[in-house]
This record gives sequence, structure tokens and C-alpha cells, in this order.
Amino acid sequence: MRARILDGAALAATLREELRPRVATFTTRAGRPPGLGIVLVGTHAPSEIYVRNKLKAASDIGCRADLVRLPESATREEVVDAVRELNDSHFHDGILVQDPLPPQIGGSQTVFDVIDPAKDVDGFTPVNSGLLVQNRATLTPCTPTGVIALLERSGIAIAGQHAVVIGRSDIVGKPMAMLLLHRHATVTICHSKTADLPAITRQGDIVVAAVGRTAFVRSEYVKPGATVIDVGINRVTERAEVDALFAESSPRRADFEKRGAVVVGDVHPDVAEVAGALTPVPGGVGPLTIALLLRNTVTAAEHREP
Amino acid sequence: MRARILDGAALAATLREELRPRVATFTTRAGRPPGLGIVLVGTHAPSEIYVRNKLKAASDIGCRADLVRLPESATREEVVDAVRELNDSHFHDGILVQDPLPPQIGGSQTVFDVIDPAKDVDGFTPVNSGLLVQNRATLTPCTPTGVIALLERSGIAIAGQHAVVIGRSDIVGKPMAMLLLHRHATVTICHSKTADLPAITRQGDIVVAAVGRTAFVRSEYVKPGATVIDVGINRVTERAEVDALFAESSPRRADFEKRGAVVVGDVHPDVAEVAGALTPVPGGVGPLTIALLLRNTVTAAEHREP
Repeated sequence: MRARILDGAALAATLREELRPRVATFTTRAGRPPGLGIVLVGTHAPSEIYVRNKLKAASDIGCRADLVRLPESATREEVVDAVRELNDSHFHDGILVQDPLPPQIGGSQTVFDVIDPAKDVDGFTPVNSGLLVQNRATLTPCTPTGVIALLERSGIAIAGQHAVVIGRSDIVGKPMAMLLLHRHATVTICHSKTADLPAITRQGDIVVAAVGRTAFVRSEYVKPGATVIDVGINRVTERAEVDALFAESSPRRADFEKRGAVVVGDVHPDVAEVAGALTPVPGGVGPLTIALLLRNTVTAAEHREP
Repeated sequence: MRARILDGAALAATLREELRPRVATFTTRAGRPPGLGIVLVGTHAPSEIYVRNKLKAASDIGCRADLVRLPESATREEVVDAVRELNDSHFHDGILVQDPLPPQIGGSQTVFDVIDPAKDVDGFTPVNSGLLVQNRATLTPCTPTGVIALLERSGIAIAGQHAVVIGRSDIVGKPMAMLLLHRHATVTICHSKTADLPAITRQGDIVVAAVGRTAFVRSEYVKPGATVIDVGINRVTERAEVDALFAESSPRRADFEKRGAVVVGDVHPDVAEVAGALTPVPGGVGPLTIALLLRNTVTAAEHREP
């Protein structure tokens, strides 16, 4: 028995379609479209791709999408000024500062802290983080919120289930735990210091892997029939690693031949033989993250001009 | 084998003594003592006792402690104005609004929201709640912070242990989970919707009971040797309930005869036969909550006038 594949890309397309009428209504009422401003510092290659995808997705549904580019050498003051300008802009409802930032900035969070919480479409400001804990946030982090949308739209029960979150980042693990808890799951948060991790994760009716380590969650970590959500996006460039992960017949091997790299999640391909449902990588959580960024932008616009 | 009793009252006394030199230093430097302002609405009997104890504890260590009393009929605006006055006061470093508030106020949290986060000695504002999630809060909720102090000062390991928190309130359960997580425990949060609760809690090396139900955690909920922290404060006034809970020889029965009521935690007395360490009620977490309120007040003062 192979796991049911939870098609994040398809749901992301649905969510984006659902936003179109909201964008149209807002645009008519406000006399302008919802606006997203992205601050990008430097030319970090993956960031360039992420930012391009986000801007394109936003304009595809009729939003305004602006990129504020700063050089790799930008000072903290310059980045903060760029954020403040977007805070003050009438035309921008959502602000995103693309992570990572160069070292002289002194930590991304110190820049996130400057974002107007009403425009904080990543949900990273302390106020929005606290409102999430108190179960009354309007803007919640995109990746974990996308996971909830996928579970709910796939008809996977959350209430009364045991959800195990592997990873405790501010961006995924901790908000994921809160969102699951508020939907009445029993929630366990695991991490690198967890003793006998497989014994814990095997209890999960839902397992969310947000570790950042290629194929870390193996079949012995998973209870038969469990739902496994793979948040990882790891680039594998070693042929030996690809060969070890994927059978000779796998199309992923052909992908590797073509591109010299494949993207692999935090979940080992073998888990598909044990799990009841599983998100693929790519095409699972990744596209949902962008869809939720758009939803947050539209929501922020609607709250700013009700 | 009976559990080691973790003496919260004794640690609370130690923590208060540790504050005296900080209070003295601050008072000399600032030309005034650290100040705590408490807003009390109405004359709810337990609140009167709590508030009196807090004010006395604050002045005992040399702090200024003021009570702002409002009638039971006070409007939301009046309560908010009282908070704003304390926000603006040079002499008050900590503000506490005593819960519960009468129904016309429209929810305590809406009043907590008005407190200046720099003076939020209960740690209930969204900003401080979010900073706690991000592991960089200065002022964290008193009860869970007191539990951490008790574990650490009692030499009970947290890192790598499995901690199970029963209860998911904004005031205890959720911040408790975050504080344990940041000290590298694996953390499970349980609640009324948790399936097979005893099977979950029996995994806990540390179990924190914050349910608000008399003697809810029974010996079969606890792994032999586990540390059990009892956050509950339940007033029992029925003789039959007291007789069922305490053996004939128990001094608690005599207490009941004298006062017509006893205070019982969320943990059943039988757990003392199974647990490795246990907080008593009264004399466990309760006194620590007040000690941490004082520590937060002194910390807030030191941050306001460094």
C-alpha cells in the first residue's frame, strides 16, 4: 500500500483562484489593488528565485507587487529605511523581507521587528507571534498555515489526533504547534535534543517534518497509516546520495541527470510505503507557502481598508 | 517510596531574599524604589486575598506597591484609563490587572492589551507572548517561570527530558510549553480533547498539571519516578470529597474541620506514592508565582532606568 499523495500544488492553485474575487472586490472598492512589497538584499541565488516566484504569483492574481532591491553591502539602517518606507506606503498592504540577510544586518529578526504588524504577511513580528499563541492572529506564518489548509481541505482530522512536529523554529515548528493545538490536536514538539525520536514520532497520527535535513524521517519513524507532512526543501547535488535515495526506475534520477541536482524533502522516499498520506517534495508544502503569502496580503489589504 | 517534596514556599523565600539587594541598588540609583501598581475591579473575595498578598510581598522587599480600586460597576473605559495612568506613571514599573474582571469589561485580555509591554509583569501582552515564543522575552508569565525556577534550583534536568503539560491556557499551559522547549525538553501539550491522556502523561519525565480540576491527575497517569508539578488551586468545601481524598490521619482533614474548606491541587494525593518529586498544594507553585511577579517588577524597573 502506498500513501495517498497530498497535492499541495493543486490546492495552492485552488487557493489562488479563491483569492481572485477578493482581489477584484477590494480593487473596485479601494480604487487600487492589494499591494505586496518585497525587500531583497544582495543577489543570493535561491532568494532571487523565491522572490521572483512570489512577485509573479502576486501579480498573476491581480495584486500590485514591488521589489525593493538593496546591494549586498547595504547597512542595517538602509534595510530598515526600506521597510519603513513600505510601512508608510498607502499602496502596500503586505511587506516581506527576504531571508537570509547579509551578516552586517545583525540578524533578520531585528529587521522583521520593524515591519508594521498590520502589513506583516509573514507573521514574524513579535505581536503577531503573540496573537497566534493567543489564538487571535489575523496574519499567521505562511508555511504552517499552508499545512493546516492542506490537512483541512484533504479531509484529514486534526482534533483529538496526536500531532508530532519535528523542528522548533520560529518560522515553522513553533507556529505549526500552536496552529495544530488550537485545532484541538495533542501536540508534541521534538528537536535535536529529543531522546529516542523514532519512538516519539511513531505516536503521531500527523507528523510534520521541519528539520532541514535530507531524508531524515525514515519509515521506522512513522506509524502505519499516519499523515506525513514534509516541510523540507534540500538540494541534493551528489550522485551517490541521489542513487541511495531513489530506485533506478525513479524519474528523480532522470531529473538529476538533466539538472545536476534534485530537491529532496526531510522525509525519506521509503516513508511512502508506510504513511497513509504524504506531501511530495517538490509540489507539496512549497507552493502552499506562496499561496498563503498571497492570502495574507489580500487579508491585510481588506483589514487596512475595510 | 514517597516522592521528594519540592518546597515552593522555601524557594519563593530565597528568590525574594535575592531581590533585596537589587531593590536596594535600584532605589539608590533611581532615587525611588521599583513600583508595582495593581488594578482591582470589584470585591471578588479570592481576588482581594491575592491582591493583598501581592502588595504585601512587594512592600516587604522594599518596593512601592499601590492598589487602584475600581467599583464592580466600572466601565471598560474606566479600567483602561486606570491602566493608562499607570502606563504614564514615572513611579510604576510593573502593572497587574487582577483577573477576573466583571462581564461588562468584555474580556480581561482586551484590558491586558493596553498595558505598556515594558511594564507587563504578568507577561500577558501579545508582544511579550510573541517574544517568549522567540525566546527573547524579558518579562515572562509568573507561574510557568516559577515552575522553571523550581525545577532548575531543585537540580531536576529539563534538557533532553520529555515534559508533558496538561492544559493549554494562555497564562500557564502554552507559555510553560515554550519555556520547557527553550530549555531543550521534548514537549507534549495535552488538553480536554486528548485521546488516552494517561498513556501520554505516563511518558512524561516531567508532568505539569494545569487543568483546574481537583485531583484530576491520578497515580496511573504518572511514570514511576517522574517529577510532577501541580499548578492547580481548587477549593474543596464538600466533606465527602475531602474524606475521599485524604486518609483519616491526614492533617488536611483537621484543616477542613477548622476552616470548612481545603485547597487541593490538580494532582491526586496518591501520586506521591509514584512520583519521584512533587510540588505540594498549598506551598508549591502558588508562592513562586508571587515571587516571580516581584522579580518581574524589579527587572522591569532595571530595564526602565538602567
